[in-house]
Amino acid sequence: MAASSSSTSFSSSSSHEGDAGSSYIECFKYSRRATLRSVVGRPDGGAGLVGERAVVGGWVRSSAVVRARRAAAGPASPSRKPEVEATGLTCTEVLMSRVPLIRCIARLMAGGITAAASAGGSARRPAVGTALVRINDGSCVADLQIVVDSALLPLDQINATGACVLVEGKIEQVEGTLPQYVVQMKVEKILHIGPVDSEKYPRSNAHSSPDLVRGYPHLAARTATVASTARVRSELVHAVHAFFQSNGFFHVNTPTITTTTATSAGNRGKMLRLTRLFSKSDNGNRITPEAVRAAIKEKTKQVEALKRSESNREALEAAEQDLQRANALSRQLEQGASAESSQDEFFHRPAYLTPCHTLHLETYACALSSVYTFSPVFQAESESLDSDRSLAERWTVDVELAFAELEDAISCAEDCVKSLCSTVSKDCSDELKFLSSNQAGDATSSVIEAAVSSPWQKIKYTEAVNTLLQVTDKTFESKLELGMPLSREHLSYLADDLYKKPVIIYDYPKQLKPFYARLKEDLKTVSAFDLVVPKVGIVACGAQKEERMDNLTSRIEESGLQVEQLEWYLDTRRHGTVKHSGFSIDLESLILFVTGLKDVRDAIPFHRTKGHAKC
Amino acid sequence: MAASSSSTSFSSSSSHEGDAGSSYIECFKYSRRATLRSVVGRPDGGAGLVGERAVVGGWVRSSAVVRARRAAAGPASPSRKPEVEATGLTCTEVLMSRVPLIRCIARLMAGGITAAASAGGSARRPAVGTALVRINDGSCVADLQIVVDSALLPLDQINATGACVLVEGKIEQVEGTLPQYVVQMKVEKILHIGPVDSEKYPRSNAHSSPDLVRGYPHLAARTATVASTARVRSELVHAVHAFFQSNGFFHVNTPTITTTTATSAGNRGKMLRLTRLFSKSDNGNRITPEAVRAAIKEKTKQVEALKRSESNREALEAAEQDLQRANALSRQLEQGASAESSQDEFFHRPAYLTPCHTLHLETYACALSSVYTFSPVFQAESESLDSDRSLAERWTVDVELAFAELEDAISCAEDCVKSLCSTVSKDCSDELKFLSSNQAGDATSSVIEAAVSSPWQKIKYTEAVNTLLQVTDKTFESKLELGMPLSREHLSYLADDLYKKPVIIYDYPKQLKPFYARLKEDLKTVSAFDLVVPKVGIVACGAQKEERMDNLTSRIEESGLQVEQLEWYLDTRRHGTVKHSGFSIDLESLILFVTGLKDVRDAIPFHRTKGHAKC
Repeated sequence: MAASSSSTSFSSSSSHEGDAGSSYIECFKYSRRATLRSVVGRPDGGAGLVGERAVVGGWVRSSAVVRARRAAAGPASPSRKPEVEATGLTCTEVLMSRVPLIRCIARLMAGGITAAASAGGSARRPAVGTALVRINDGSCVADLQIVVDSALLPLDQINATGACVLVEGKIEQVEGTLPQYVVQMKVEKILHIGPVDSEKYPRSNAHSSPDLVRGYPHLAARTATVASTARVRSELVHAVHAFFQSNGFFHVNTPTITTTTATSAGNRGKMLRLTRLFSKSDNGNRITPEAVRAAIKEKTKQVEALKRSESNREALEAAEQDLQRANALSRQLEQGASAESSQDEFFHRPAYLTPCHTLHLETYACALSSVYTFSPVFQAESESLDSDRSLAERWTVDVELAFAELEDAISCAEDCVKSLCSTVSKDCSDELKFLSSNQAGDATSSVIEAAVSSPWQKIKYTEAVNTLLQVTDKTFESKLELGMPLSREHLSYLADDLYKKPVIIYDYPKQLKPFYARLKEDLKTVSAFDLVVPKVGIVACGAQKEERMDNLTSRIEESGLQVEQLEWYLDTRRHGTVKHSGFSIDLESLILFVTGLKDVRDAIPFHRTKGHAKC
Repeated sequence: MAASSSSTSFSSSSSHEGDAGSSYIECFKYSRRATLRSVVGRPDGGAGLVGERAVVGGWVRSSAVVRARRAAAGPASPSRKPEVEATGLTCTEVLMSRVPLIRCIARLMAGGITAAASAGGSARRPAVGTALVRINDGSCVADLQIVVDSALLPLDQINATGACVLVEGKIEQVEGTLPQYVVQMKVEKILHIGPVDSEKYPRSNAHSSPDLVRGYPHLAARTATVASTARVRSELVHAVHAFFQSNGFFHVNTPTITTTTATSAGNRGKMLRLTRLFSKSDNGNRITPEAVRAAIKEKTKQVEALKRSESNREALEAAEQDLQRANALSRQLEQGASAESSQDEFFHRPAYLTPCHTLHLETYACALSSVYTFSPVFQAESESLDSDRSLAERWTVDVELAFAELEDAISCAEDCVKSLCSTVSKDCSDELKFLSSNQAGDATSSVIEAAVSSPWQKIKYTEAVNTLLQVTDKTFESKLELGMPLSREHLSYLADDLYKKPVIIYDYPKQLKPFYARLKEDLKTVSAFDLVVPKVGIVACGAQKEERMDNLTSRIEESGLQVEQLEWYLDTRRHGTVKHSGFSIDLESLILFVTGLKDVRDAIPFHRTKGHAKC
């Protein structure tokens, strides 16, 4: 039942030799089957392929078996009408995707299509002992329905959600007027079955809640929602690189591991720190020099007390020996401590996972001029209420431009995000439609349209606050006055209610932005901006960077950061300083915006949050 | 001297209003100057731009000042012939790039070009009190020479390597036959100078060795070698995404943080482990429950000894109170221990930086079919001799294909690497030429040509060993017999000497490959491969993955790994298993291959090695 050859051959000959009569749909270049995208993902839904043969593979999304009615069903079934037994209904999305299937089967059962089934490749009424199985290989939203006869294999093998199949067969037309299901495949040969342990398969025993799906990130991509989100994410990543390459930017891999803790300024969470994995330190049960010093102090007291009493030689000798041992241990530990602590630090000093790439990227902007990076950032947020929903590992697109001021960065950020939205709405329209139709996401196409087609609202922070303070049709829970940060509900009012499109808020009070934002002439505000989009909030933020050495060092001191740690960063101002500006796009927030998903944990394949790092 | 406006305006009007007469070279879309790539990076070297005006910026690579001879120079200089005083010669690459400059100045000084300087935009003999400054903005290999008159500013401000300049001027033709320097700019206006603190600038005090440059990764991209390497790296990253997107792969962000330590199988180094940055645990001086337990044991002994002696009430009471305190502390610690240890672990269990993305990526391949990721991997290698050259943070391209066998993965890897090499040799020809001409790199174009144009050598491991055992024209230092790994010199012999092109070695003994490689019918070898390229060694490795549950669990046990940690991974075999294959390309090794650089630390912007994580 496994695919044929296990020997390694490097010939390019087709594996379909000798199958004359009908042509084969071309296999995906690097695997042994045609993708479903090349069959049902075509604009014609596969209509042009009717009569052709193909090898296809995928995982079972849902299935229905047409069985003969048992004799025990009694006299009420005089015509031995076939009975449809469906399996694999697990969660909303599968239910929804099966509505057409159920309708289709119902229509077939009603016998209303036999007359219409005239074309050579058209489907006939499914025979008794036939499985109708919807499979998906992740290459597109649409499933392919394959029709499997029980003569080929016991149907319960192929009938379980999550099973993998690789089959060969012929494309037939599906009768009826369901535009999304134009063709199906009549299976002629089973090449591989990867069965499912249904008792253990997490998706086949209950209506899967989002939390259940999140608990199985390694299987979740087999659901239509997670797969669609993954394809949107992939398209966004491609669009990011396409945008920056076509605009002459260079991609720079800034480091994940950093020894500069000052980069955490302005981040809500703390930094994740590295240790070296030593088997000996892994058990954690080490005696510290401090504990030994404390013990020595006490032992010394004991010895003195015993000496004062001059009565108990036995106890005094024991205590003295004990003290000597403790002193020896202490010397040993003190000597070892420095050696061990430097050995413990693989990098010979404390190292952390970077919470932002700006500082490192700036150094490359001050040499290559126009640079960007697409890299992970890290923070350990545990004190806020939603820390279990705050990603400890996220991906950001960071951009830095030399010889550029704030408006250049804003203009680039606007063009970039518009370009990403436009690419996704064009190339992932099926995914966005599916996610909108699904409970998981809202209708987003109009929101994206508005974001792409019109110029964005640009207002200064002070204007934003003054506007919000004059709002009468809504009361805000959080307090607001000039100098205070805008809360989520304030941002939502501006983007969702007032302007109904993305809003760029700029020129913030300096205390609300990191030390590197450039001080303006009023000495109170800085050249920094946030990009706020409807329904999500801030998806990007940026700043013109302070290029003046004196201002920068003052701001570092004001922020309470260690200037020694930033000496390397200051070098870019000390030597050949230049006006430069940049911004950072939060990829996961952007995914929420384009997909309409609500929970940021669903925007990344394997989410890491406080207390959660499965796999 | 700073660029004009500091207010934020969002108008799209040109900043060059009122400058009638000659047209301006278009500015880079998101900054305030034309890139040098759009001037001297053109195929004609800028010849078509003569007479046009532009704003350009960059950092000074080298410069020469034409000064009046001092009167003190004596009567030997009757004609007050100008004297050229060059600065900024720091390392080989700058020296090399200045050879034409020096030649050019020499020619100008010789006065042989005045007659030829007839064209309107042609350069005249540089006036006394003129600086010839070569600047580069990182957009291309070529520098632009700008001619600055001392009337504009004191020349020593612009005359220092590393200074930043933003200037406006007119493009002139450079006389002579130096094809790489066709035009220069006669500066008319200084818009910005970012001076250099020459005493502190690391590149201006000595011939910069590679180690010196590596010590300043934040300034290194201003050298032509590091900038060229960065542009090649960027082009490779773009080419990676272009290749996989055009072939229908989806990009997946697999996690950096993992709780699965079994992924380290097959890696040489250990895993880097995370702790949470707590201010209290940062000082490390904690009393452990174990130390307290040990103290209690001793205190109990003391108390018993004192009791036996029945003589010293004072000492006994002190010892008893002491014991009580210790017991209370112990209870407190034991209670707190679980709370604290789980609090210490941000993810509630030990978490590490992933040394490979294969396992996580496989789970997405078993849903989306054709996936790849471009992500960082981590390992702490400290025991080998070259651990200070072994990158603790690297970037890899990982690829995984469902419904695919070993030869599919090999074919994809070959196509991919060929496509990357071909793109780079086409789009980075200037960079590759520069790196070849520079001492840092070897001539590589012919090696890349050979790799791109011919089919690669494919041999089984056993063939490779037998071939090497029969070699008579060379003796190898390391021992070799069937079942042993091929050493660096063996791989070099095959790729450099014997086949003179990339070699794919496949079907390795199972003990040489990770547990997930698919066992072949002989039960001794596995379907795995290495891609070996000339001069570098292994740049990629891959395998068909073991899809059979029983075989996989046996191999996990054989490898001494904890099967419990891999339960999630086994789910992909338990449920809908599929034949799948993949490979991993080491980006830094590939960069060494295409650039000819020798040290892997130079292939990444901020290298992290044992004891080194600067910035």
